[in-house]
Amino acid sequence: MPQPLEAPTHAMLASDHASQWLGIEVLQADLGHARITMTVRREMTNGFAITHGGMVFSLADTAFAMSCNAPDGDADTVTVASGVDINFLRPAAVGDVLIAEARAVAATGRSGVCDVVVTRDSDDEPIALFRGRYRTIPAPSSPAGAETSREK
Amino acid sequence: MPQPLEAPTHAMLASDHASQWLGIEVLQADLGHARITMTVRREMTNGFAITHGGMVFSLADTAFAMSCNAPDGDADTVTVASGVDINFLRPAAVGDVLIAEARAVAATGRSGVCDVVVTRDSDDEPIALFRGRYRTIPAPSSPAGAETSREK
Amino acid sequence: MPQPLEAPTHAMLASDHASQWLGIEVLQADLGHARITMTVRREMTNGFAITHGGMVFSLADTAFAMSCNAPDGDADTVTVASGVDINFLRPAAVGDVLIAEARAVAATGRSGVCDVVVTRDSDDEPIALFRGRYRTIPAPSSPAGAETSREK
Amino acid sequence: MPQPLEAPTHAMLASDHASQWLGIEVLQADLGHARITMTVRREMTNGFAITHGGMVFSLADTAFAMSCNAPDGDADTVTVASGVDINFLRPAAVGDVLIAEARAVAATGRSGVCDVVVTRDSDDEPIALFRGRYRTIPAPSSPAGAETSREK
Repeated sequence: MPQPLEAPTHAMLASDHASQWLGIEVLQADLGHARITMTVRREMTNGFAITHGGMVFSLADTAFAMSCNAPDGDADTVTVASGVDINFLRPAAVGDVLIAEARAVAATGRSGVCDVVVTRDSDDEPIALFRGRYRTIPAPSSPAGAETSREK
Repeated sequence: MPQPLEAPTHAMLASDHASQWLGIEVLQADLGHARITMTVRREMTNGFAITHGGMVFSLADTAFAMSCNAPDGDADTVTVASGVDINFLRPAAVGDVLIAEARAVAATGRSGVCDVVVTRDSDDEPIALFRGRYRTIPAPSSPAGAETSREK
Repeated sequence: MPQPLEAPTHAMLASDHASQWLGIEVLQADLGHARITMTVRREMTNGFAITHGGMVFSLADTAFAMSCNAPDGDADTVTVASGVDINFLRPAAVGDVLIAEARAVAATGRSGVCDVVVTRDSDDEPIALFRGRYRTIPAPSSPAGAETSREK
Repeated sequence: MPQPLEAPTHAMLASDHASQWLGIEVLQADLGHARITMTVRREMTNGFAITHGGMVFSLADTAFAMSCNAPDGDADTVTVASGVDINFLRPAAVGDVLIAEARAVAATGRSGVCDVVVTRDSDDEPIALFRGRYRTIPAPSSPAGAETSREK
């Protein structure tokens, strides 16, 4: 099982309530590359007793956001997902330790694409392939961003 | 704000821990068409103080699953998402009441496509468009499904 | 077989060499809604003797472009696809008359989503579901667009 | 400009009329990895005088099909695209030499995912990112495949 280093962290995580609930820990966080981990708990499963697709998506989405936004924050802009294509390859069960690794793969202007692979730590098998489309916009807290947050 | 009828429910919800945590309520659930609702809580937000994309996805994914699986259950097969394309159109904030409406749009053999639109109840504006790809497989609890759950 | 009216046409088609090669005819063209048709010829098939996926995509992409750009042209901006999710449901054979119907489904600022359904005229069965993401940019021929064409 | 070796070829190309019209040449073709090239001609452009998205898609789709099907053919099964997510990053112009490189990235049973990157030879810039979902089915010419071609 991967051991979170003491050092790696990300400004986003401190105020990301959803990721905190998911129990996400940061293994590596650089602009353009992030690696995070989450252990599947019972409350993350669906009616078929496997991990709810939305929980796997959430893990990947957090890795995506960490790789698209600088670890030490940025006062004026934020980079958000405008859309995602995800393929679910295998189910995950309670107790599985999942790893999400995000890498920026292309950029044009304020848009770009970032790929995330979610694997199961025990056997390194891919659980899901997530391809996120991002867009950099004025920060919701900045004057320009006040009423345009997440709009494109 | 939409009032859940007393009647509508879905066999899946009883054992869907993730949807229970999300506070999802069923407004309508028929095979091929489902309408559910969720109110955004603080623990569903991300580091930008807007709803985490994974929580919006989770709501849509639950609506998708409800419209693809019969409300009164089925012993032998389950229908799961093999993949999804989602477009995030607008942010949602704490307190927003979100509605996810799912409709089956095409089927070929054991595969098909189901569209989900997530809207904000207050202004009927679309928050996200979710297009799910499903596949019907042996139930994990059935003999044939024991080791193939979610694999295609 | 659908009869192209004498009237319907679109400014784009006159200079769209690819659509001309495909033999595309316009059945209806309004901003936000277009219906076009194409008959599959032998040179549109692949090594499996079915219509090449790229040819079905091309038909849908032309319908998409027609519904996103005004039929009578616009000097300053053009609307292009930044991306597409397509599901191929059934094969099409030589001689099949295909219909692509495009409808705008959502817009935020200069971005939006437009769905295209490709059906076979003979049995009205869906061949493909195309969900296009568009972005409005300065026209390549305008001063602002000279070096930014299709970039976002 | 890349020089097609004398050797590389693929059984599919001999009977792929669409790829022949596109002028596609094979640079490398192995199961799980293919590299092909195409030069943009005037009849591949759209009404904005840039390469029609469907032509870029077609090139990528051919690379995808070549990497998913053995170069020396297979009598009983064929592998086809059940769907694709494509991001268009930059426009391509008449005369541009495009390279499409396909790599299989994941497989589960008879399904899998294959990524294709389309670049412009002159500056190695990515034009499009194509993520194809495949499915292996009975060959249309085989007894089992006679009426199920491309259905899933």
